Amino acid sequence: MSVADFRAELGDIPQEDNPRIVQQRSRDHYWYSPVLKAKLDHVSAEVVVSPRSTEEVKTVLRAAYRHGVAITPRGAGTGNYGQAMPLSGGAMLNMMNMDKVIEIKRDRVLAQAGAVLEKMDHETREAVGSELRFHPSTYRMASLGGFIAGGSGGVGSVRWGGLRNLGSILGLKIVTCEAEPRELGLVGEDVLKVAHAYGTNGIIVEAEMPLAPAYDWIDVIVGFDAFMDAARFAEAVALQDGLLVKEVSPCAAPIPEAYFNRHKPYLKDGQSVVLIMVAPVSMDSLALFVDHHKGEMRYRADLATEDEKRRLPPIYELAWNHTTLRALKIDNSITYLQTRYPTIEHVRRIVEMLGDELPMHIEMTRQDGVVTFSGLPMVRYTSEERLEEIIRIHEDNGCNVFNPHRYTLEEGGMKRTDHKQLAFKREADPKGMLNPGKMVAWENPDFDFNAGKAWLFDGLNAVRTA
Amino acid sequence: MSVADFRAELGDIPQEDNPRIVQQRSRDHYWYSPVLKAKLDHVSAEVVVSPRSTEEVKTVLRAAYRHGVAITPRGAGTGNYGQAMPLSGGAMLNMMNMDKVIEIKRDRVLAQAGAVLEKMDHETREAVGSELRFHPSTYRMASLGGFIAGGSGGVGSVRWGGLRNLGSILGLKIVTCEAEPRELGLVGEDVLKVAHAYGTNGIIVEAEMPLAPAYDWIDVIVGFDAFMDAARFAEAVALQDGLLVKEVSPCAAPIPEAYFNRHKPYLKDGQSVVLIMVAPVSMDSLALFVDHHKGEMRYRADLATEDEKRRLPPIYELAWNHTTLRALKIDNSITYLQTRYPTIEHVRRIVEMLGDELPMHIEMTRQDGVVTFSGLPMVRYTSEERLEEIIRIHEDNGCNVFNPHRYTLEEGGMKRTDHKQLAFKREADPKGMLNPGKMVAWENPDFDFNAGKAWLFDGLNAVRTA
Repeated sequence: MSVADFRAELGDIPQEDNPRIVQQRSRDHYWYSPVLKAKLDHVSAEVVVSPRSTEEVKTVLRAAYRHGVAITPRGAGTGNYGQAMPLSGGAMLNMMNMDKVIEIKRDRVLAQAGAVLEKMDHETREAVGSELRFHPSTYRMASLGGFIAGGSGGVGSVRWGGLRNLGSILGLKIVTCEAEPRELGLVGEDVLKVAHAYGTNGIIVEAEMPLAPAYDWIDVIVGFDAFMDAARFAEAVALQDGLLVKEVSPCAAPIPEAYFNRHKPYLKDGQSVVLIMVAPVSMDSLALFVDHHKGEMRYRADLATEDEKRRLPPIYELAWNHTTLRALKIDNSITYLQTRYPTIEHVRRIVEMLGDELPMHIEMTRQDGVVTFSGLPMVRYTSEERLEEIIRIHEDNGCNVFNPHRYTLEEGGMKRTDHKQLAFKREADPKGMLNPGKMVAWENPDFDFNAGKAWLFDGLNAVRTA
Repeated sequence: MSVADFRAELGDIPQEDNPRIVQQRSRDHYWYSPVLKAKLDHVSAEVVVSPRSTEEVKTVLRAAYRHGVAITPRGAGTGNYGQAMPLSGGAMLNMMNMDKVIEIKRDRVLAQAGAVLEKMDHETREAVGSELRFHPSTYRMASLGGFIAGGSGGVGSVRWGGLRNLGSILGLKIVTCEAEPRELGLVGEDVLKVAHAYGTNGIIVEAEMPLAPAYDWIDVIVGFDAFMDAARFAEAVALQDGLLVKEVSPCAAPIPEAYFNRHKPYLKDGQSVVLIMVAPVSMDSLALFVDHHKGEMRYRADLATEDEKRRLPPIYELAWNHTTLRALKIDNSITYLQTRYPTIEHVRRIVEMLGDELPMHIEMTRQDGVVTFSGLPMVRYTSEERLEEIIRIHEDNGCNVFNPHRYTLEEGGMKRTDHKQLAFKREADPKGMLNPGKMVAWENPDFDFNAGKAWLFDGLNAVRTA
């Protein structure tokens, strides 16, 4: 591996090798996890390369292949599990210079991988009154390619499910890492070969996404004295087919009063809340439904002054991973889990067993057509052992955990090899140069996912073809 | 009761008393049911009155109250259970002259009761690219007020639920039948006082409805050799959050080959089909999904010629009550039921038990957030006793039946009194002049809905205040 030889072939493609800047660009939000923080703190690339076109991406990958330099693609770096952290050093491929929206139709948009989601929505709203079906809470920064490669769903998933659903990604254009890199167009189920693969088996350069109608969504906060009443209300709202909502998230006390600083004047101490984004056409019906459920309407953006709205972050920046982010800003002993509770009874049992050690935060989502409690509970972290115990308590009680304290693709939740992604890596990245260390099945095909020792896998190696 | 005195007070409000025309206008699609056909064939009003404004509706109701003349409101008369048939004679109130779309916004529309649904959609599509969330298969003829007063859901209910869902009707304006008729605005849950009340407790003159984005929905027919494969596929499509569909309906063989005449060149004898309307953005994903389920793509409107499309009725006119309508045109021994199958296993059991005596037809719907098999199975009718037996077989096997062979509100499915509707009738129609005979609880407050003799209730009386 010669990074110098690699760099020499890049022509005028922008490069950055200031070590402080390179290290900064080698990180994502891995520090959400104390476990990952300890493991990944030292990780850094040697250079950041910022191509401005698909041709330049090909130039980079051609040179990387020839000189055995690891390539880790990165959008805005808003992932939480080190998805875009270069475990084997090499080059960080910064995609944020490729940020153009290429084509807008009323029901779909084609854009480059580095397009920022909020900016895309701004353009499509202006042009055709449409917007992306769903987005992460890092909407203002996150890139389209990064979301597809490292995300799964978010605000809007209560209506539209997630990225892995059929029809959620219409097409992808990727570049392979070979002697002569190819552009490949993937449509239909083939998009799943590279979606949520952390850039391990092809560099996403363009994506076509379906659009939903854009509305002036109204931020709403509803208070309940008991968390389970908040959870029941949240489920009921998500089940109301006639109520057009984009976000429904119950957060247990003391999360709101402790961490939603700027909303504090609207909150009541001791109350749990449900965060909601509702379409104007459904606002009156929602208000009625709140009354029926004996909730307290604590904030309605449609009744707020312009000045109030300016002071407050949007509701989606209290939700999804921003809930934990806000807590971490105030209390760095907080971490979190990603869970799924099959029924409200499972929620009740876990809340009862773990109490304030696990301040509950749920995102209502649709999963294959079924309204589901997707948990992002906070954890008051004491030790890795206790964290594992909390995971086991979930599993013993019939609740799923998608572990956000792992940086490999498979350990994060699948607990198995995705053979289509693995097979595609053989084709698109035969030397294993792309984001090495993230796909367990590539590094160690015999890995036993049932051994219960998933953590012991060590992806922090130099790239094996080097 | 003096119809002559009543008529004398109507000024220049259009009236029609040609007995043949009046009888024709006194009928709906009650002949779907051999039971109702026998009971209601003789029913006729004495005069048809056709007001052109809310003021004229008030004039009609003032005169009706004073002279004790029964008033039965009617839109296009596309109901199937005699909803708009004047059991006690009197005057038929034809609302079709009040057909204006009053105000269109991107997410809602305000229109008069007699506005025809398809025409409304045409106007809102032109103006703002939006359309009604759902409509009956009689879309081209049915009026807004008639749909609200006598319908429940339809094409689009697979996504948006039904009229009774919170938020499905934003507001109603009604006129009461009193000495001095009042205009009342109903919003929120108050709309449920008069929605699906057959016009028994107030005359709907205006309605505000939410709009959904309009797409150039693509008609699709998928064939399966086994009906249960069709049903499984239909459920799976309805559960795919990423697939934007407006209609999903499995129809068992021999329904398609026997009754979908104009589509015959596209069908295969012996096959069951699934009728689908899909948004263009989801067409490719749907085609992929058809392959996965080993279905045969028998018709795709997006690949049809203009000439083919001109020859074919839209898919929604094969679905909902049009399925039975097409059968009735060919075989007048056919009738139908309205059912609900909690799971696909319930569908399988009923299909297995009843076979070709009950050619199965299902509409996939969302009911309170849950994808549901709403049945509209045909029945090869032999006798009323056997029909009752088929209903009992359903009920004994845990399937609900909403009996379409009853003309009263309660017997049609609720099997209980809606106390809010009853209470509102006391307020809005104190003399009981509006559509008399349809609300069991008004005519006979002591009626025992558990007695299993619902049919024995006789609403065919002269209006009791006359």
